[in-house]
Amino acid sequence: MASGQTPIDSALERLRALPFENLEFATVDHHRQLRCGHPEVIFCQGKTLAQVVAIARRLAGGGAAVLATRTSVEQRQALLAEFSTAVVNELGRGVLIESGAARVPAETDLSGAPHVALVCAGTSDLPVAEEAALTLRAMGAPFIRLNDVGVSGLHRLLPHVERWQKACAVVAIAGLEGALPSVIGGLVACPVFAVPTSVGYGSSMGGVVAMLAMLNSCASNISVVNIDNGFGAAYSASLVCQQVRTARNAAREG
Amino acid sequence: MASGQTPIDSALERLRALPFENLEFATVDHHRQLRCGHPEVIFCQGKTLAQVVAIARRLAGGGAAVLATRTSVEQRQALLAEFSTAVVNELGRGVLIESGAARVPAETDLSGAPHVALVCAGTSDLPVAEEAALTLRAMGAPFIRLNDVGVSGLHRLLPHVERWQKACAVVAIAGLEGALPSVIGGLVACPVFAVPTSVGYGSSMGGVVAMLAMLNSCASNISVVNIDNGFGAAYSASLVCQQVRTARNAAREG
Amino acid sequence: MASGQTPIDSALERLRALPFENLEFATVDHHRQLRCGHPEVIFCQGKTLAQVVAIARRLAGGGAAVLATRTSVEQRQALLAEFSTAVVNELGRGVLIESGAARVPAETDLSGAPHVALVCAGTSDLPVAEEAALTLRAMGAPFIRLNDVGVSGLHRLLPHVERWQKACAVVAIAGLEGALPSVIGGLVACPVFAVPTSVGYGSSMGGVVAMLAMLNSCASNISVVNIDNGFGAAYSASLVCQQVRTARNAAREG
Amino acid sequence: MASGQTPIDSALERLRALPFENLEFATVDHHRQLRCGHPEVIFCQGKTLAQVVAIARRLAGGGAAVLATRTSVEQRQALLAEFSTAVVNELGRGVLIESGAARVPAETDLSGAPHVALVCAGTSDLPVAEEAALTLRAMGAPFIRLNDVGVSGLHRLLPHVERWQKACAVVAIAGLEGALPSVIGGLVACPVFAVPTSVGYGSSMGGVVAMLAMLNSCASNISVVNIDNGFGAAYSASLVCQQVRTARNAAREG
Amino acid sequence: MASGQTPIDSALERLRALPFENLEFATVDHHRQLRCGHPEVIFCQGKTLAQVVAIARRLAGGGAAVLATRTSVEQRQALLAEFSTAVVNELGRGVLIESGAARVPAETDLSGAPHVALVCAGTSDLPVAEEAALTLRAMGAPFIRLNDVGVSGLHRLLPHVERWQKACAVVAIAGLEGALPSVIGGLVACPVFAVPTSVGYGSSMGGVVAMLAMLNSCASNISVVNIDNGFGAAYSASLVCQQVRTARNAAREG
Amino acid sequence: MASGQTPIDSALERLRALPFENLEFATVDHHRQLRCGHPEVIFCQGKTLAQVVAIARRLAGGGAAVLATRTSVEQRQALLAEFSTAVVNELGRGVLIESGAARVPAETDLSGAPHVALVCAGTSDLPVAEEAALTLRAMGAPFIRLNDVGVSGLHRLLPHVERWQKACAVVAIAGLEGALPSVIGGLVACPVFAVPTSVGYGSSMGGVVAMLAMLNSCASNISVVNIDNGFGAAYSASLVCQQVRTARNAAREG
Amino acid sequence: MASGQTPIDSALERLRALPFENLEFATVDHHRQLRCGHPEVIFCQGKTLAQVVAIARRLAGGGAAVLATRTSVEQRQALLAEFSTAVVNELGRGVLIESGAARVPAETDLSGAPHVALVCAGTSDLPVAEEAALTLRAMGAPFIRLNDVGVSGLHRLLPHVERWQKACAVVAIAGLEGALPSVIGGLVACPVFAVPTSVGYGSSMGGVVAMLAMLNSCASNISVVNIDNGFGAAYSASLVCQQVRTARNAAREG
Amino acid sequence: MASGQTPIDSALERLRALPFENLEFATVDHHRQLRCGHPEVIFCQGKTLAQVVAIARRLAGGGAAVLATRTSVEQRQALLAEFSTAVVNELGRGVLIESGAARVPAETDLSGAPHVALVCAGTSDLPVAEEAALTLRAMGAPFIRLNDVGVSGLHRLLPHVERWQKACAVVAIAGLEGALPSVIGGLVACPVFAVPTSVGYGSSMGGVVAMLAMLNSCASNISVVNIDNGFGAAYSASLVCQQVRTARNAAREG
Repeated sequence: MASGQTPIDSALERLRALPFENLEFATVDHHRQLRCGHPEVIFCQGKTLAQVVAIARRLAGGGAAVLATRTSVEQRQALLAEFSTAVVNELGRGVLIESGAARVPAETDLSGAPHVALVCAGTSDLPVAEEAALTLRAMGAPFIRLNDVGVSGLHRLLPHVERWQKACAVVAIAGLEGALPSVIGGLVACPVFAVPTSVGYGSSMGGVVAMLAMLNSCASNISVVNIDNGFGAAYSASLVCQQVRTARNAAREG
Repeated sequence: MASGQTPIDSALERLRALPFENLEFATVDHHRQLRCGHPEVIFCQGKTLAQVVAIARRLAGGGAAVLATRTSVEQRQALLAEFSTAVVNELGRGVLIESGAARVPAETDLSGAPHVALVCAGTSDLPVAEEAALTLRAMGAPFIRLNDVGVSGLHRLLPHVERWQKACAVVAIAGLEGALPSVIGGLVACPVFAVPTSVGYGSSMGGVVAMLAMLNSCASNISVVNIDNGFGAAYSASLVCQQVRTARNAAREG
Repeated sequence: MASGQTPIDSALERLRALPFENLEFATVDHHRQLRCGHPEVIFCQGKTLAQVVAIARRLAGGGAAVLATRTSVEQRQALLAEFSTAVVNELGRGVLIESGAARVPAETDLSGAPHVALVCAGTSDLPVAEEAALTLRAMGAPFIRLNDVGVSGLHRLLPHVERWQKACAVVAIAGLEGALPSVIGGLVACPVFAVPTSVGYGSSMGGVVAMLAMLNSCASNISVVNIDNGFGAAYSASLVCQQVRTARNAAREG
Repeated sequence: MASGQTPIDSALERLRALPFENLEFATVDHHRQLRCGHPEVIFCQGKTLAQVVAIARRLAGGGAAVLATRTSVEQRQALLAEFSTAVVNELGRGVLIESGAARVPAETDLSGAPHVALVCAGTSDLPVAEEAALTLRAMGAPFIRLNDVGVSGLHRLLPHVERWQKACAVVAIAGLEGALPSVIGGLVACPVFAVPTSVGYGSSMGGVVAMLAMLNSCASNISVVNIDNGFGAAYSASLVCQQVRTARNAAREG
Repeated sequence: MASGQTPIDSALERLRALPFENLEFATVDHHRQLRCGHPEVIFCQGKTLAQVVAIARRLAGGGAAVLATRTSVEQRQALLAEFSTAVVNELGRGVLIESGAARVPAETDLSGAPHVALVCAGTSDLPVAEEAALTLRAMGAPFIRLNDVGVSGLHRLLPHVERWQKACAVVAIAGLEGALPSVIGGLVACPVFAVPTSVGYGSSMGGVVAMLAMLNSCASNISVVNIDNGFGAAYSASLVCQQVRTARNAAREG
Repeated sequence: MASGQTPIDSALERLRALPFENLEFATVDHHRQLRCGHPEVIFCQGKTLAQVVAIARRLAGGGAAVLATRTSVEQRQALLAEFSTAVVNELGRGVLIESGAARVPAETDLSGAPHVALVCAGTSDLPVAEEAALTLRAMGAPFIRLNDVGVSGLHRLLPHVERWQKACAVVAIAGLEGALPSVIGGLVACPVFAVPTSVGYGSSMGGVVAMLAMLNSCASNISVVNIDNGFGAAYSASLVCQQVRTARNAAREG
Repeated sequence: MASGQTPIDSALERLRALPFENLEFATVDHHRQLRCGHPEVIFCQGKTLAQVVAIARRLAGGGAAVLATRTSVEQRQALLAEFSTAVVNELGRGVLIESGAARVPAETDLSGAPHVALVCAGTSDLPVAEEAALTLRAMGAPFIRLNDVGVSGLHRLLPHVERWQKACAVVAIAGLEGALPSVIGGLVACPVFAVPTSVGYGSSMGGVVAMLAMLNSCASNISVVNIDNGFGAAYSASLVCQQVRTARNAAREG
Repeated sequence: MASGQTPIDSALERLRALPFENLEFATVDHHRQLRCGHPEVIFCQGKTLAQVVAIARRLAGGGAAVLATRTSVEQRQALLAEFSTAVVNELGRGVLIESGAARVPAETDLSGAPHVALVCAGTSDLPVAEEAALTLRAMGAPFIRLNDVGVSGLHRLLPHVERWQKACAVVAIAGLEGALPSVIGGLVACPVFAVPTSVGYGSSMGGVVAMLAMLNSCASNISVVNIDNGFGAAYSASLVCQQVRTARNAAREG
């Protein structure tokens, strides 16, 4: 296209250049990874076995890592049957089909690398934390973890403050009254991505109370994702992490 | 009481013995203080000046201390015009017409007496805290106070833990995400009466979020009153305090 | 530590002194009983059999009494298999692993001891009342009970008023419109811990209506816990009871 | 009516026979009184002065009694200017333009006539009770009243039970937790029309809590109208009353 | 008791005179029928088979008719095993154990007797209508019925208007938008007891929308019961009917 | 357009071709009328006088008719000062700056033209109906009107059915229980655009009840717009009307 | 009827002329098709197999096409057993019993005929889209489809804009945040009937969030049906389509 | 730090080292800036003039930059009277008292610096955008802006995509249906902090609908703050930006 392009040309060209492919039930797009720097994600809830496998096959065939979230037992089995090397996280209900890319460093090998802190208030919140953990792995983001540090037991939480303060983003997971992010938010100087969970009973409203409490946090650095959306918080946290790493590397190389 | 009485007689006699007096617009009951050991309380919201003054006059005439809550500026002025020695708390919107009974010891004179800890998360919650403070005074319950100790500033809250741990009940007041009672609840071994406040904006829903969060607290010793109901929490807390004092005194005298 | 300590030292020391032990999925804390004077409680909903048993074993090994609430049938069986002398309350879904401490006096042996009144509006609310009863036992709090005294049958409720008036705290359990605590609150001079239940249908919203009604009670001495949280109300009530007993004993000994 | 008519003719003829008249902004129907045996009612909220007066004039011109509800101060003044003999109830915000029909017997003259019991929980609920009272007068239904008998003061409520038990319908008005109808419902054997009021604060949600509590009453004979709808409850109660009176008179005359 | 009785004596005596009997799980009261003129009702949801049968046996032994509502299949079988002549309504989930009293006249034999009109909007609402029908039978109230007359099919509804207009109360049952009572209310001059049903999908919120719509009806003679509470509406309607019949009979005999 | 283009080119070109112009506070787009065949609409709520006038001036300068909705009194005055020939609808809070295009035929001149029926349940709903009427005028859609035909007065509604049945779309406006669209929907064979209004009190929730009732209508041809959104319903209705007219004209000319 | 007929006669006659037939559980009306120009629809949820088959048999016997929506597997089997040529849509849970009328042209044969665009945001929304598709077929409305075009993938949506812009109505189906109709609304000049779906998790509230988002759309031409109501939106869309076709044909023939 | 220290020492020391100072009504903490790298923020809603000025004076005296949010007109005047060089943003209701630190580069001088993209859907959302803009300035975060790019006008939004794609975080502000973040989220590879606004009417519920829609976004990189909380989103976004800048600088210098 000629030089007289208006600004809108530029945006449109980017969009136009994105090829996509039509399955009967889904429009798959191979360029998302290029655009976003991350694997394709399949939200599996409400999809049939056949649909999930077909989408995964097509995406993996395109060379991308594929993360399947909210899978059923049957969906996990079907994906494992198809992709024998896939990483399956039962508790977190996720499957990661890695594309042969470099492995994420183990938690004990952080060596000062930009990383995420993954904090979880109670044992019952672990499935959400596992989904977040698998997502961080899929995104290539190193992370440290701490479980079972509810706010009514400050003596369990406080010793870890110093470690958290080195993270470039925190994923904070809690059900019930959802107070954990507020307490953490006051102790760190990075964004805290808060995940309300559906853990609770009675008037917990399936996590709505925790979600609303987090949205009304008195801490300034809290933002919130949907109930039980460990994936989303980890995804955003890894985007922060990735930019810090990229900036560091670019500057070093530059 | 005669020996042939059935159990129901006993309960009914107690009720029957309670005289009451009909104003045109209210049924005033002079025996409540005897029954409950506390002054009569007038909830003034939605009552006219004339009604408030008439009820107060009748009650004070009966010898009781009278606590008027949720008064308007005009109601406070009208009560002060009628009862020149009344204690007026502007911020807490309350008026206390004391009956000449012994004064509550000042905060610095606790001397080991059973007392209440009154804790408030933010400056904006002060009106509710003041209502609670006036109620504690009306009930003759000594108390200690701490303001502005929100959970995102643990370094402000923690130094006071030891003092709270000596109280026989805590009144914990917070708006926004209402996390304060959960944190305090984990640090003390007495009942925490939690007061959600309407402080907040956006999705705080006028305090409903704080209230629900408190009801879903992960701490075991939390119970909750209505939004902005500093009176109710202080009333219940003083009932605890009073029983402890009575038990101590009775045993000493016994 | 030297005499120059700031106030914050004192609070922090208390926290620091609390050892804790890390299971893979939970951070167990042996000092809670010391801090709070009560057994450790395991909220079992959403935990696996292995997790529940492991936590219970660790805690009981520390010498504490252990109360497991909201257990499933399988969890109860697993705990009983591990702790053959555990007290199992099927209706209340609780298990109490007693630590050999002194037994709670039977209901008919109150002998003037400070005690709790446990009142329940309808037959369908009994599971919640049973959870409360087991909690009171675990906490060592004597109590009297009355079932099936809904407010539309005052003739059943009134004969018991006199007995209640001797309690130092009331646990009042009701579903549907949740009016019971308001009626009781007007008849006693101690704190009433109100428990809304999920009993109802149609617009009862799983107990939310009862909960909101209790929070808006016209009685002054009502505070509220979460829906079906018989444990929480009994826990707070027993904390009142315990303080009265302690005060009495201390004064006698002093 | 001719013999060949199908059933649908009959219903349609009744409808067809009803003349109506078009004002520019309202379709007024003179036959409602014939159809329903009651005066025309103008719900004035959201209508202009001119509209209210015009509708009232037209209806009164047709010979009907006219009840204007939820009037503003200005609307009341305008109606009084037009109908100098109108009965104005300031507190109840209503205006009654009587059509010269027989007066309702005074409360002390019930003489065994079928009547309504009008019961009100608190002083702040009086405006709603006044609207109900004016409606009962407009409908020609005798009634007895009792104010300020909240459920936390049973000793004030119980002495009146016997009187209520003679009424053929009860209108029970309460805000806050709305428990009054449940208590009354258990004591009488007639329909109780429950009116939740917007009296309350915090989580009362403008009367929604009282309304929901009433709808979930454990008493069998409760039905509920909209918040603050004293008119509606009184209207339905008077329809019961009227039928009993009609039955009695018809049988006597028959 | 002597002649100097205060008014409160009178009310209390009535209450005191009511004997009651304690089962382990329920306080049964034999005098309710005398007080209310109707059979005892057992709300069976959430009760065990043993509890339901025990309560029914005790009540029937006292000579009362017994209506069991919201029974499960098993509860119906257990009651039928115990009371072989009981009337079982499968669709309405009710069981009626009649006490040998006079039978209700069949629908075609109304002969001008005071009766109820039972109207139901859709086929899916029939279970609620059946519960209402069984209740009317238990209460001895004659009634006429009409099913499947939703407001979007006025041509099906209008032919029946004339019949309804002779009833002394209407029970109007509808789900979805709940508009039926408003349309009927404008066509009759008696109380309409509206029953919202849980029939619907999507945003119907299990009947809450229908319930709220009915509470906001533009008709003046509507009052509302809980969702799916066919029992309650029929109970109130029969109380109207009974009073009209009593008045007629009393006048005839007088 | 060249032959080598992919489908995405086509869509993008359409978008690219749309010029727009940046004010400091708004991005104005002159091509909307071309794209949609309708005037530009300014939603004025929350905009300053200066903003409203500036946007209107720019748009009118482009030759388009301009419809300003939800204007304040001051905004209406400012627009009238700027556009002296503007049509101002006080009740409907709208201003129409016509572009000199052909006038809409008066209501009595429909002459068989495709038109909209605009129906309004109550006098208090008139402001919304006026907004709809002005919108229809702005869109060039002929319409007939009927006011004050609530469902509790069927005799006022039924005579007009025949007229409505000739419309190609109905705009049905109602507050309170919002039943009007259901009744109309069953009587016509065209789309009914339902507008819930905020008219009501108590539990009407500012129109939410009417809105939800309409969404749960038992009629098949109802779709719903936001509360008080007379504009939106009229806009959609006029789009139907316009297509019918265009089809008729095209066929005639073709 | 004679010439002196009032307007109301006309409307009533139309209604009266509609014969209907009473099954025991449903009032079936054969004239709806004549009145509305469409097949009879049976909403099967909550109906028994016997009821569904009986209604279908009666209606099909009257010559109408019959569309059964929200059928269970068993209901589909029962209908297929009865009507062997019925069209069954498993995913859309619908059954169409065609009356031998002309077939709808296939999607690729639109040839400029007035048609509907059926757009669906995600794979999980397909059941709702299928219900809509079957409805369009039942109504004889040609349509084009596009699946899986969520708003976070604009590059998949934009290429189709041009095709949509030729439709006379759009059915836009989306769950989660329900943004699809807003984006489409800004790109077309016809009514968009928006269908929120229950697809989502956490705080999606079963589709309520999508529904409310659509009702608050910033686009002018959006109207909304109930959650998952693919039938309703398709029904309304086909009514638009039908009128355009009729107008075109009438003009051609005229 | 001595070698014998347990991990908890470390955390506690950090907290202990933080001095704080007690005003009568607030506990001010001078070290927050050190801890968080940002100025102290005063949330002014619900605070008196005297409180706001006193807190600001104390903080500014400590050398920190001070950002006052949600100020009233009077509070802004009072702050300006005290701090004559303060930056006042009327529309955004904020005041920034800068501490003499380096100025933020102007928007046109980004020169490749890590920056935030601030995007706003409509003119009415501008106050929230202004609050965000002032916060970004206070935090020293460069940013680019775009206003009035609602999703129903894609042609206005798309030309800017390329610019946004260079930002390290996006703040996306929208009211009504809140769809903007979903559309943007699909076009960028950085975290999007979504701000729902209270702009809307009818069922928008003061921004709750927009908030819930954003929480249910189909895009993976969205996290949400409270309604109208431009401050919070900008704060989190600037924390991302700051880390990227720090990493770049550190690497360059390292």
